[in-house]
Amino acid sequence: MIYRRHIQIEFNHCDPAGIVFYPRYFEMTNSVAENFFREVAGQSYAAMMRDLQGVPTARLEADFHAPSRLGEVLEWRMQLTRLGRSSIDFGLQAWCGDEHRVTVRLVLVFVEGLGAPKPWPNDMRAAITAFMEAPDA
Amino acid sequence: MIYRRHIQIEFNHCDPAGIVFYPRYFEMTNSVAENFFREVAGQSYAAMMRDLQGVPTARLEADFHAPSRLGEVLEWRMQLTRLGRSSIDFGLQAWCGDEHRVTVRLVLVFVEGLGAPKPWPNDMRAAITAFMEAPDA
Amino acid sequence: MIYRRHIQIEFNHCDPAGIVFYPRYFEMTNSVAENFFREVAGQSYAAMMRDLQGVPTARLEADFHAPSRLGEVLEWRMQLTRLGRSSIDFGLQAWCGDEHRVTVRLVLVFVEGLGAPKPWPNDMRAAITAFMEAPDA
Amino acid sequence: MIYRRHIQIEFNHCDPAGIVFYPRYFEMTNSVAENFFREVAGQSYAAMMRDLQGVPTARLEADFHAPSRLGEVLEWRMQLTRLGRSSIDFGLQAWCGDEHRVTVRLVLVFVEGLGAPKPWPNDMRAAITAFMEAPDA
Repeated sequence: MIYRRHIQIEFNHCDPAGIVFYPRYFEMTNSVAENFFREVAGQSYAAMMRDLQGVPTARLEADFHAPSRLGEVLEWRMQLTRLGRSSIDFGLQAWCGDEHRVTVRLVLVFVEGLGAPKPWPNDMRAAITAFMEAPDA
Repeated sequence: MIYRRHIQIEFNHCDPAGIVFYPRYFEMTNSVAENFFREVAGQSYAAMMRDLQGVPTARLEADFHAPSRLGEVLEWRMQLTRLGRSSIDFGLQAWCGDEHRVTVRLVLVFVEGLGAPKPWPNDMRAAITAFMEAPDA
Repeated sequence: MIYRRHIQIEFNHCDPAGIVFYPRYFEMTNSVAENFFREVAGQSYAAMMRDLQGVPTARLEADFHAPSRLGEVLEWRMQLTRLGRSSIDFGLQAWCGDEHRVTVRLVLVFVEGLGAPKPWPNDMRAAITAFMEAPDA
Repeated sequence: MIYRRHIQIEFNHCDPAGIVFYPRYFEMTNSVAENFFREVAGQSYAAMMRDLQGVPTARLEADFHAPSRLGEVLEWRMQLTRLGRSSIDFGLQAWCGDEHRVTVRLVLVFVEGLGAPKPWPNDMRAAITAFMEAPDA
């Protein structure tokens, strides 16, 4: 199943060349992951913070296929490619209409307390697994 | 009439104290104004850029009444308090439920070409005036 | 006495019009204040965070006199205009050579614990007062 | 030869967990590359913009080895690993003292006019090559 978010490109995202400044794409990937955890995994970042938990990014890769411009709307499509004991791999693509703009791979790790990786809590693992196995709408 | 936008507070907006970092409030006020010009005044920032026009901010004032936290949703309410020959005054308030968090006053100026203030184009002035005079829904 | 910081305008600060996007000016004013507290008041934001203290912004005003462009270097000059029981007023100006670009007034409040304003600790008050009363170099 | 820049971690870079928010690391990598082009390759981003040139990022990879905290100073070390006909590969590492925090690989492409890759101008190629071949100080 694919998790989707639409993000409108505003002044805030663009550089003097009028295209999205690449660090802003990662504000977008973080927002997509953040909303996924709240909506799908049943645990918002705010709730995690209160429990001294978090899902820091351990690794990422990105390919920028074509620039995105002010006023466009990007559709971010995120798939879960692997759920480990305490990690998760996401594959993200940003599309504008039928143009593929960006591909990102994110690896996040579930941590607790002083920052050591911990196994996913059972309820989060169950919710994420159910999403992975559901057919795309 | 009041122009409204909801903005969810995400990791991106928050500082190490877990509250909105004040420069991020101005990313929000810019976004509200940007969407107002596209939706109400009929001229997106992208369209203005193509015509070498813009609405830079000349002055602002802000009062921060109470902090906003990760996971909350802010309702931004924007009113037009004055439409000058080439300027516009906006009064914005950010609310979370019935808590008033931030008040901002923005003064923008319509410019063209090399940056000199110009009178508002007739169609923009008409659209903005119609919005100002309409009753709030 | 005037507290000075130079900030080079990079891609990160600029919008599609090639000029500083106004929320980035407030990233700069925050950086100037943050360095002032570390260097002059003897208390870094990191140290304050560890003690559950902070200096949130209560109010600001800004006038944007002329745009700043990619590649320029701004000199920020900050003066203390008032030291209250638990507040501080800063007057900032950004200059590029002999061009005055931005004027900002910031009001910060010292808070502790759950966010209630507290009187300045004696050592911070003494360091800030000494700076206010020193002649500008 | 290694290109070095020091960046102090300020409020601006940190998330509610008090550590650097990963999109801010890419504001840092962009700043390092931007200063490299100005100082080493003899062509600032501002000069490139005036000539309708640029060096957009085509690909990046990042590994986050350990978190960085408010108040720390990162030393960014950048090496040129490959200079192609119109591309350049950078290997960056962020260190805090003897702790290795982040590794990033950036691939940039020189473009002109409508965005098509172009061979590096001779003067830029010569300056970059001289830097690559120089021993580290």
